[in-house]
Amino acid sequence: MKTLKDKIRSEGKVYPGNILKVDSFLNHQIDVELLKSIGKTFFERFSDIKVDKILTIEASGIAIAVIAAQYFKVPVVFAKKGEVKHHLVYSTLIHSYTKNKTSIVQVNKSYLKENEQILILDDFLAKGEAVNGLIDLVLQAKAQVVGIGIVIEKGFQEGGASLREQGYRLESLAIIESMDQKGIHFRE
Amino acid sequence: MKTLKDKIRSEGKVYPGNILKVDSFLNHQIDVELLKSIGKTFFERFSDIKVDKILTIEASGIAIAVIAAQYFKVPVVFAKKGEVKHHLVYSTLIHSYTKNKTSIVQVNKSYLKENEQILILDDFLAKGEAVNGLIDLVLQAKAQVVGIGIVIEKGFQEGGASLREQGYRLESLAIIESMDQKGIHFRE
Repeated sequence: MKTLKDKIRSEGKVYPGNILKVDSFLNHQIDVELLKSIGKTFFERFSDIKVDKILTIEASGIAIAVIAAQYFKVPVVFAKKGEVKHHLVYSTLIHSYTKNKTSIVQVNKSYLKENEQILILDDFLAKGEAVNGLIDLVLQAKAQVVGIGIVIEKGFQEGGASLREQGYRLESLAIIESMDQKGIHFRE
Repeated sequence: MKTLKDKIRSEGKVYPGNILKVDSFLNHQIDVELLKSIGKTFFERFSDIKVDKILTIEASGIAIAVIAAQYFKVPVVFAKKGEVKHHLVYSTLIHSYTKNKTSIVQVNKSYLKENEQILILDDFLAKGEAVNGLIDLVLQAKAQVVGIGIVIEKGFQEGGASLREQGYRLESLAIIESMDQKGIHFRE
């Protein structure tokens, strides 16, 4: 997705520890025109499959999921972080290497149902912690992951390769092959 | 907004302590068709003013802000919760009575600029803690609050009355006059 890659090149900031900040248009301030293009592109990429619901995780994933859901015409569910207070939820642990923090993540059992066809959307894919946590929640519900859509995949980390090997249909709109303070290079 | 009030009446759950849960369509699972109507309605209500940017707070506010921003054709900024790590942010404290927790909330100084006309959007207004925190961030930036849009106002708590007395233009799409386990009554 060229507009996205151009934006990452011009506004993305690379920090030590493989950190890419895109706070000016995706993760703190949001360029809603770009977000609409992202949502439409996910819809085109997954137009051949039946999607019942979009699953994401708070907070940044919510913007992407709701904009995309307008085109799919399905509800969004976002997994919540924080302690589990009752047994009416599916829960899992997700470690963020960027934040160096492990969070309990949960979805109320009412909002993920057996056999539902779930599309997972998220902003970043690196080692795959968040996506694997969301897959775990879907499997606990005996629902089905029919696709995974990622805005920015760090192709030099193992998350994407592992999901593709497992047979998941993964569509990443921008795959970074390498990055450093001098520049960002995308996979063609 | 009739569709919203109908949805609150049919799916909202009232708990002791003036808690209203709307997790089935707004705060955990999101009914994106209803969300679009909410976004369009905010755009109609504030159509006579110039808005440069929409400000909200993670997590639930993000969905509302990005959908509405499509109609206003402006960027969204969402205030983030969590500890302040450097001085390049405006920060304030917001207490949540529902969660019984005080959070540090911040916005990077790059994303709120002097004289910008800011529309604040959020899901709930009760005692006004979150909105007053967001107003504080806007004032620190020497920007201007040109409007406040709320999906559900608890009219029996003081936040709305206080903001209107201070002269803020507040538009709430559903104002609850009273609620208990037997039912929810809206202000006409």
